[in-house]
Amino acid sequence: MTTSVAVATAAVLAGDVRAGSRVMRLLDDRDPLATEVLKALYPHTGRAKVVGITGNPGSGKSTLTNRLIAHHRALGHKVGVIAVDPSSPFSGGAILGDRIRMMEHACDPGVFIRSLATRGTLGGLSRCTGDVVHVMDAMGYDIILIETVGVGQDEIDIVRTADTTVVVVVPGLGDDIQAIKAGILEIADVFVVNKADLDGADRTVADLRGLQMLLSAMPAWIPPIVRTVAAKNEGVAELAAHIDLHTAHLVHTGHEAQRQHTRCQFVLGALARETVGHRVDRWLTDAADGQALVHQVAVRKLDPYSAAASALAAVA
Amino acid sequence: MTTSVAVATAAVLAGDVRAGSRVMRLLDDRDPLATEVLKALYPHTGRAKVVGITGNPGSGKSTLTNRLIAHHRALGHKVGVIAVDPSSPFSGGAILGDRIRMMEHACDPGVFIRSLATRGTLGGLSRCTGDVVHVMDAMGYDIILIETVGVGQDEIDIVRTADTTVVVVVPGLGDDIQAIKAGILEIADVFVVNKADLDGADRTVADLRGLQMLLSAMPAWIPPIVRTVAAKNEGVAELAAHIDLHTAHLVHTGHEAQRQHTRCQFVLGALARETVGHRVDRWLTDAADGQALVHQVAVRKLDPYSAAASALAAVA
Repeated sequence: MTTSVAVATAAVLAGDVRAGSRVMRLLDDRDPLATEVLKALYPHTGRAKVVGITGNPGSGKSTLTNRLIAHHRALGHKVGVIAVDPSSPFSGGAILGDRIRMMEHACDPGVFIRSLATRGTLGGLSRCTGDVVHVMDAMGYDIILIETVGVGQDEIDIVRTADTTVVVVVPGLGDDIQAIKAGILEIADVFVVNKADLDGADRTVADLRGLQMLLSAMPAWIPPIVRTVAAKNEGVAELAAHIDLHTAHLVHTGHEAQRQHTRCQFVLGALARETVGHRVDRWLTDAADGQALVHQVAVRKLDPYSAAASALAAVA
Repeated sequence: MTTSVAVATAAVLAGDVRAGSRVMRLLDDRDPLATEVLKALYPHTGRAKVVGITGNPGSGKSTLTNRLIAHHRALGHKVGVIAVDPSSPFSGGAILGDRIRMMEHACDPGVFIRSLATRGTLGGLSRCTGDVVHVMDAMGYDIILIETVGVGQDEIDIVRTADTTVVVVVPGLGDDIQAIKAGILEIADVFVVNKADLDGADRTVADLRGLQMLLSAMPAWIPPIVRTVAAKNEGVAELAAHIDLHTAHLVHTGHEAQRQHTRCQFVLGALARETVGHRVDRWLTDAADGQALVHQVAVRKLDPYSAAASALAAVA
């Protein structure tokens, strides 16, 4: 371990916010130093509770996240927030009012907010999210909230890395439950019907009730349905309690270890893809042989399947 | 080339729908035969025009797609449709009324509809979409419409493989343009403001106008903004004309070749990731050494970055 790695690692473990931010920036830049720091941090991770919060734009999940931050801060917990949704106020993407509301936590040293732009290459986003979770975990944040939109494989993969996944739906968008059915409902540990003071909330709850028995991700855990009005701070404590119940359930039943195994396997697969993909992308861009190979495919003298095998051989 | 590959290839090239469907099912099952057929088909591809249509759920892009199908059928074109959005009526995911409306083309032999579930592993979906495009192209479909939601890296990657990308927005969802800004607006070749008879359409058009100069993906092409009311079939011919203009522009300026190169490079990277990822996933699941490696990471005796390198070495 070089000195700079040791220094950065020690600073992150001490909870130094500037050191943590620096490592995350290095991650963005794919700096090899960041990986060395992550390797050194890894044995010190695994303590934080990771909660994924997902839902369509407009479901109010940012407001809900904001309320959960306040809830945990009141309990004295340190809170990390990772916003993956480009439209999230945490990412700076949303309308001004929302942004200002989120800002209340921006100056609290017990809250670390990190937004990830969806600019990565294939699968890069979920890799990066996992890395940021490790850094926050090593920094000593007790709970890490990952906010992401509930559409897209990459987003689903991100949520899959959480200990507990909260799926937020809102009443009144007729096809909403349909729209999220294909990927997200199956991985919900807790359902939230937000904006539960709107017309149609009972209907949405009833729809979810019809599905929840079918969709339980684990034996013996039926995802509860929590009604919230995040804008009025209603139902937030109840939601936090249900998240705690789920954590207790995981530990009690031993599913924690099984989840951990599944998650690690997923991460290793993603890292392998990312590593090889990055090497191949660079070779195709920079090497004359790589450019020539792409040209052969573009003019249809060579099929992409044979060409991909050649590219893999070239970077092996 | 084995006999079965030769037979399947000839049948697909003759436009045989059952043969095409069979190859697509083999693709889903990762049957090696499918790759052999794709290799044989590849020299016969590149003739179809590929149009990506993307937008949030509720933007009416399925209805718009339906209208474009009708438009091209009236011109005598054969139309392929690939629905990637799980909420799309083409995928069977949407409310009954929509589904029935889409069914009008289901019995037309000049229309081939294929829906892809978002069930794949990381990056698998965009690989699969590209493969299905090749099969439809080889079968002789003149235009291939890819319908996908505009959120998520995987979806963006899919759209990136199209010749022309149409981004559909609707008025009245205040933060909608914000929500899609991060990934999709940059790759728009044509903007559609659908449901343009709603209040706020002028405002949405104005918002887009403010962005369009900044966001042009190519020099000398400013993405036009087309108003449509897909439900009433208004503006559809104009949209089709703008798509044609974009095609002409690509050919005229020589950007066609450049796009083709970029696209092929992207496909090779995705194929390399997919190939290696699939191998690693299998090794981690099936091999005793692979399982032991995951366990080491799960109990934090080994960091995932070193473990991923070991996994790559093991499958190399």
